Amino acid sequence: MNYPIISRILGRVMGLEALLMIPSIITALWYGESILCYVYTAAIAAALAVLLNLPKLKTGDFYAREGFISVALAWVLMSAVGALPFIFAGEITSYVDAFFEIVSGFTTTGSSILHNVEEMSKGLLLWRSFSHWIGGMGVLVFIMAVLPMSEERSMYIMRAEVPGTSFGKLVPRIRTSSAITYLMYIVLTIILIVLLCAGGMPFFDSINHAMATAGTGGFSVKALSIGYYNSAYIDIVTSIFMMLFGVNFSIYFLLLMRKFKDALTDSEFLGYFGIAIGASVLIALDIIDEYGGFWNALRYSFFQVSSLMTTTGFATADFTLWPAFSKSILVLVMIIGASAGSTGGGLKVSRVIIFFKAWVQEIGRQLSPRRTSNVRVNGRTLPAATLHNTLVFIGLYFLLTFVITAVVSLDGYDLETTLASVISCMSNVGPGLGPAGPMGNFDIFSDLSKVLLSFAMLAGRLEIFPMLILFAPATWRRR
Amino acid sequence: MNYPIISRILGRVMGLEALLMIPSIITALWYGESILCYVYTAAIAAALAVLLNLPKLKTGDFYAREGFISVALAWVLMSAVGALPFIFAGEITSYVDAFFEIVSGFTTTGSSILHNVEEMSKGLLLWRSFSHWIGGMGVLVFIMAVLPMSEERSMYIMRAEVPGTSFGKLVPRIRTSSAITYLMYIVLTIILIVLLCAGGMPFFDSINHAMATAGTGGFSVKALSIGYYNSAYIDIVTSIFMMLFGVNFSIYFLLLMRKFKDALTDSEFLGYFGIAIGASVLIALDIIDEYGGFWNALRYSFFQVSSLMTTTGFATADFTLWPAFSKSILVLVMIIGASAGSTGGGLKVSRVIIFFKAWVQEIGRQLSPRRTSNVRVNGRTLPAATLHNTLVFIGLYFLLTFVITAVVSLDGYDLETTLASVISCMSNVGPGLGPAGPMGNFDIFSDLSKVLLSFAMLAGRLEIFPMLILFAPATWRRR
Repeated sequence: MNYPIISRILGRVMGLEALLMIPSIITALWYGESILCYVYTAAIAAALAVLLNLPKLKTGDFYAREGFISVALAWVLMSAVGALPFIFAGEITSYVDAFFEIVSGFTTTGSSILHNVEEMSKGLLLWRSFSHWIGGMGVLVFIMAVLPMSEERSMYIMRAEVPGTSFGKLVPRIRTSSAITYLMYIVLTIILIVLLCAGGMPFFDSINHAMATAGTGGFSVKALSIGYYNSAYIDIVTSIFMMLFGVNFSIYFLLLMRKFKDALTDSEFLGYFGIAIGASVLIALDIIDEYGGFWNALRYSFFQVSSLMTTTGFATADFTLWPAFSKSILVLVMIIGASAGSTGGGLKVSRVIIFFKAWVQEIGRQLSPRRTSNVRVNGRTLPAATLHNTLVFIGLYFLLTFVITAVVSLDGYDLETTLASVISCMSNVGPGLGPAGPMGNFDIFSDLSKVLLSFAMLAGRLEIFPMLILFAPATWRRR
Repeated sequence: MNYPIISRILGRVMGLEALLMIPSIITALWYGESILCYVYTAAIAAALAVLLNLPKLKTGDFYAREGFISVALAWVLMSAVGALPFIFAGEITSYVDAFFEIVSGFTTTGSSILHNVEEMSKGLLLWRSFSHWIGGMGVLVFIMAVLPMSEERSMYIMRAEVPGTSFGKLVPRIRTSSAITYLMYIVLTIILIVLLCAGGMPFFDSINHAMATAGTGGFSVKALSIGYYNSAYIDIVTSIFMMLFGVNFSIYFLLLMRKFKDALTDSEFLGYFGIAIGASVLIALDIIDEYGGFWNALRYSFFQVSSLMTTTGFATADFTLWPAFSKSILVLVMIIGASAGSTGGGLKVSRVIIFFKAWVQEIGRQLSPRRTSNVRVNGRTLPAATLHNTLVFIGLYFLLTFVITAVVSLDGYDLETTLASVISCMSNVGPGLGPAGPMGNFDIFSDLSKVLLSFAMLAGRLEIFPMLILFAPATWRRR
């Protein structure tokens, strides 16, 4: 293992985190709040940046191992330091709670332990939303976009930090790809801020909700989430933008390049919208009586489906009170999740598609054992290693979910609450069901559960392997 | 598709089913009950046997396709006819209920819709238990053991009907293998009957419980299940025999051949007992206060764990009232299930082991993409096709579970009840949680749910593929 290079990368992440305090400092100054909590945190991050830059590089060797470990450690360290402003400000008193909150932020989960979000200082609210925005696209991808890094090193980091089976190389140079992606991300976020302001949402709220939407995070500055504004316009704009941020960003690149046919026949793109529309209609039919008519029911079902499927986690209704069938569909879309190469979490639609094709192929193989066939996606044969990785990933997702559920159930909540909360964290959604539902709170869980759920959120965001590799003995064995 | 040969095989199954009425007729005569319901059923089965034997064989061709379809159709037909005694006797009035009950019997699930099991006639009680005993080892495997069948045909049928990744060929000839297995099965069942009688259980109850234990079924002749006898001796004997019937029968063959080392170092054998002991101790610690001391708690936890892990489904305690952690562990062992080549259901310990090894291998591959490595089980390299099949199987198990849960949740029960009931049916366990728990009843569900749960039980018993192949368009396409 090339420790000095990992240390250097972590140093850069700390340097970036010091800079990430700036927006909160500006907000705090504007609203006349104390800026000390951000200044202290920035100072600590900067000091760590200097310390981590000290080890001398003996070699530039950087392989898959270093990529995974850098990314996993970067996210843990970033969260450990990112929790500090809440503590310094005294607005969250337990460090475990603060850590949970900011892991939930960076991983774009949006589960919260806060009871009175509207009483938080504005600077901290912005820090929460900003952590979504940064975490959505990836911290190391950001660093890659602005600082020079070798092509090979970039590739291993992209592979570990960007969700999905493909890692969205838009142009031959990875650095350029990530810069283009970030540019599209910024533009879409600004458009959303403008649209929300146009609908009468205050400017501060618009910035926060736009960043939380872009990162598919789901932290809100209101206890009632988007439901607070009680505006069909805001509901629909937010629903549509949640869906847009759950699309693979390479689709937008294809559209910009005028490759409309490639973009619009992409199987993940079609599957993603197909599932969202199907689920919304099924739920609308199930809740039609409570919402007086199909179209009003559809407004609420589409918002909740797009929120949970893109793993954002905003709410305009307390779906914990919806019928069991609707809740099951919502849990299903939480598991499926958004598209690869988007800011959303979950298994990803592309994996579900690959899995279905693997199933059809396996039936064919059982019927005719001697005939060989390949799994094809978008007209191309899927490499056997990708297929295998997808199958292991899906199995691991469920296995981790059940094991974490078993331990979290020590807190004594019913299985519905426990399982939905764990799935919510694994898929980076936010709300669970029952007392941890959209109008509830994750503060109901014990510290042990909060730490485990933080692990689940990180495992979900980094797609399991980096976090498991961090704990695998083989990783640390000398070669 | 060679339809005439499939028809012939179904004819044999019907012929067998007519004969399967004999034990119930003897019981009914002994207790002075009417035998008409069994005679009518036997007559219908015999008539079907004659009709199904009419089509002329054009060719003896028999491939994987014919094997899967024969097995899937045989199980559906056998259940459709096996439901009739309940209807003719008028002791179950709805055909859907009777079908559910006998599917639950043949698949060795043990979920019941009966409210007053103790008021059923003895002949029908025996029919329920006997269906477990027959279903445990497999109907077609039985036919294979007693009637001549070509080696290739036997292989495809074994592959479709016998659970697990290997299909337990003990000696070079498959027919001899299945005869040996059935002999061991009969001997173990008789030993259990003797031991239960010795513990003071009435003879009739002993026969029924021994057959339900052997098939890892779980139907009881008492509403309180094994808990009725309130005897530590009976609890312990039953626990141990449930565990024994969850062992791969080829292990017993190895022991008979004095290959002790091969038998006792088998990774599935060790994993199976390891998981059972670990789960029992964890639960005993969790329920220690309710049961006044560790050893008494262990008596109850070991019984429930061996019952649910071997997917038998007997109960000596209402574990629906246990703490959430214990319930989670119980659901986990229900999912893991027993060993391949046993009468138990679930994923099977061998698949879980293969999955863990695949996970470790995948981490290794992510760290060193260029190095190739194999998954090894019991010192032998696992064929890539088996590994792939295992991964697809595990994914499908969870996918089917979630999809069926979504539909069953239309009945409006909470997710804990619905999910646990579906898992219980998929794994052929029997009891779920909540109102469908060990002291509850599956009659709470709607007819649609009962049909779906019957499908889940058949899919679980036949390990998913035969049932899916039955519904795959590719199966029925002309070649």
